[in-house]
Amino acid sequence: MRLVGVGVGPGDPEMLTLAALREIRDADTVYVPVLAPDEQGRAEAIVRSHLGGDERVRRLVFALADPVDGPQERRRRHWDDAAETVAERLRDQGGTVVFATLGDPAVYSTFSYLAAAVAELLPEVEIATVPGITAMQATASQAGIALTEGSEQLTVMPVLRDVTALRAALQARGTVVAYKGGRRLGELRDAIGESGALGRSVYAEHLGTPDARVLPLAEVSDVDDAPYLSTVVVLPPRGGRGEQW
Amino acid sequence: MRLVGVGVGPGDPEMLTLAALREIRDADTVYVPVLAPDEQGRAEAIVRSHLGGDERVRRLVFALADPVDGPQERRRRHWDDAAETVAERLRDQGGTVVFATLGDPAVYSTFSYLAAAVAELLPEVEIATVPGITAMQATASQAGIALTEGSEQLTVMPVLRDVTALRAALQARGTVVAYKGGRRLGELRDAIGESGALGRSVYAEHLGTPDARVLPLAEVSDVDDAPYLSTVVVLPPRGGRGEQW
Repeated sequence: MRLVGVGVGPGDPEMLTLAALREIRDADTVYVPVLAPDEQGRAEAIVRSHLGGDERVRRLVFALADPVDGPQERRRRHWDDAAETVAERLRDQGGTVVFATLGDPAVYSTFSYLAAAVAELLPEVEIATVPGITAMQATASQAGIALTEGSEQLTVMPVLRDVTALRAALQARGTVVAYKGGRRLGELRDAIGESGALGRSVYAEHLGTPDARVLPLAEVSDVDDAPYLSTVVVLPPRGGRGEQW
Repeated sequence: MRLVGVGVGPGDPEMLTLAALREIRDADTVYVPVLAPDEQGRAEAIVRSHLGGDERVRRLVFALADPVDGPQERRRRHWDDAAETVAERLRDQGGTVVFATLGDPAVYSTFSYLAAAVAELLPEVEIATVPGITAMQATASQAGIALTEGSEQLTVMPVLRDVTALRAALQARGTVVAYKGGRRLGELRDAIGESGALGRSVYAEHLGTPDARVLPLAEVSDVDDAPYLSTVVVLPPRGGRGEQW
C-alpha cells in the first residue's frame, strides 16, 4: 500500500507534471483538501479538470487557513482525523492513495504532517511524493521576470505573524518571496516600501484560475481584501546582462 | 513570432509539465543548450525522449560550466552567438521557437540572458516562459524530505566563488539549498559540518538520469569528483509535527 503526495501546481491544470497526472490517473483514491465538506477547493478543481466526476476523488477537511498564532487544537484535530481516514482506507482496501496538494508537497504543504501521522498509524505504508510547480514559479512566468540570475540568493518565507523576518531578508541581497501574506498585505507593502524595493515587487493571487491577478505590488489598491494565499516577489536591483556574476 | 523558455525539469522526462510538453510538441524549432556541438546535453535527452529524432531539435552551444571568476568574454560571446542564431531563425521563418532549459527558466537559467539579447535584435518578438521542476524539488522528492514546513525560511544560492554566503545562511534559521557547488563540495561540506548541520544534509547529482545519486551528504566519499550541477539541501532542526508554527 502506497500514499503519494502529488503536487498539482498553483491552479492551472496544465501546470501539472506528467508524473503527477499519471499518479492521479492510476490512483485507487484521490484525496483533495477542502475547508468545508461542501466546498470545492482549488486542488479539487485541478484534479477534476483531469478526472471529471470520477468517484475516486474524495474530500478531506483541513483547517488550512486557520490562524497560526492561536491554540492549535483545531489544526491538529483535522490532521488526526484526516490521517485516520486515509489509514483506514489503506488498511481496508490497500492500493495507492494520492493526496493532491497545491504547489509542491515539499514546500509549505500539509502533506508531510499527514504522511507522518498515517505512517504512525500504519507503519507498513510506502510514502512517496511527486513535485509540483510552486506559486513563485508561476508568478515569475506570468510576470515575465526571472526569480534569480547569476549568483543572486533567493529567500522564501511565509508572512504569517509579522514582518520582522521579511524586513531582515529585504536588507540582505537577493530575491525575497513572501507567501501567505494576504492578511498582512498592507503591512507587508509598507515594509517593502521602506526598504526601497516597491518598484521591484510583483503581487499575485488566484494563480491559474479565472480570477488570477498578477501585477506590480505598487498598483494593488485593495490591500485589505487580499486572499490568504497570495504571493509577493521582491527582485534585487539588477545591472546589465550577466553583471551579477 | 514567439520565443518560449520551457523548463524541462532536472532530468526525468516525466518531470515536465503538460504545458511544457505542449509547447515543445507545437514548436517550429526547439533549441537545446549544449557544451559542444557534438555532445548531447541533459536538456536534449529530455526533449528527445518526447520528440525522438525530430529535426526541429537543434543545438545551441553555451559555455554553461565556464568558471565565473575569470574574464567573461567566452560566456558573453556564446550568449551573443546564440541570440543571433535564434533571432535569425525567427526573422527568416517566424513561428514559435522554444528554448529548453533544465529546471525552471526563472531560476538560475541562461534563458533570461538569451531572451534579453534576442529582444534587442528583434524587438517585436513575444517572449514567454513555462515553469519547470527545479533540482531542489526533485531532491526533496527523492530523499523523502520536506524542504520547508510551517514558518521555516528557505534560502537558495549558487556556491560558485566561495562559501561565505553559505556560512551566513547556515547561521540563520531555516532550510539552505546550495546549487552548483560540485567543484567546492569538500569546502562546502566542511562549512556545513562546522555549523553542526551535516547530519541534516542531503546531496544529489545527475537527478532523473540513470547515474542519479541522492544520499546523506555525510556519506559522500568522493567530494573531489562531484559534477558542477550538484544540489545540497540542509534542513533546519525540527521538533514534532507542527511545532514550528
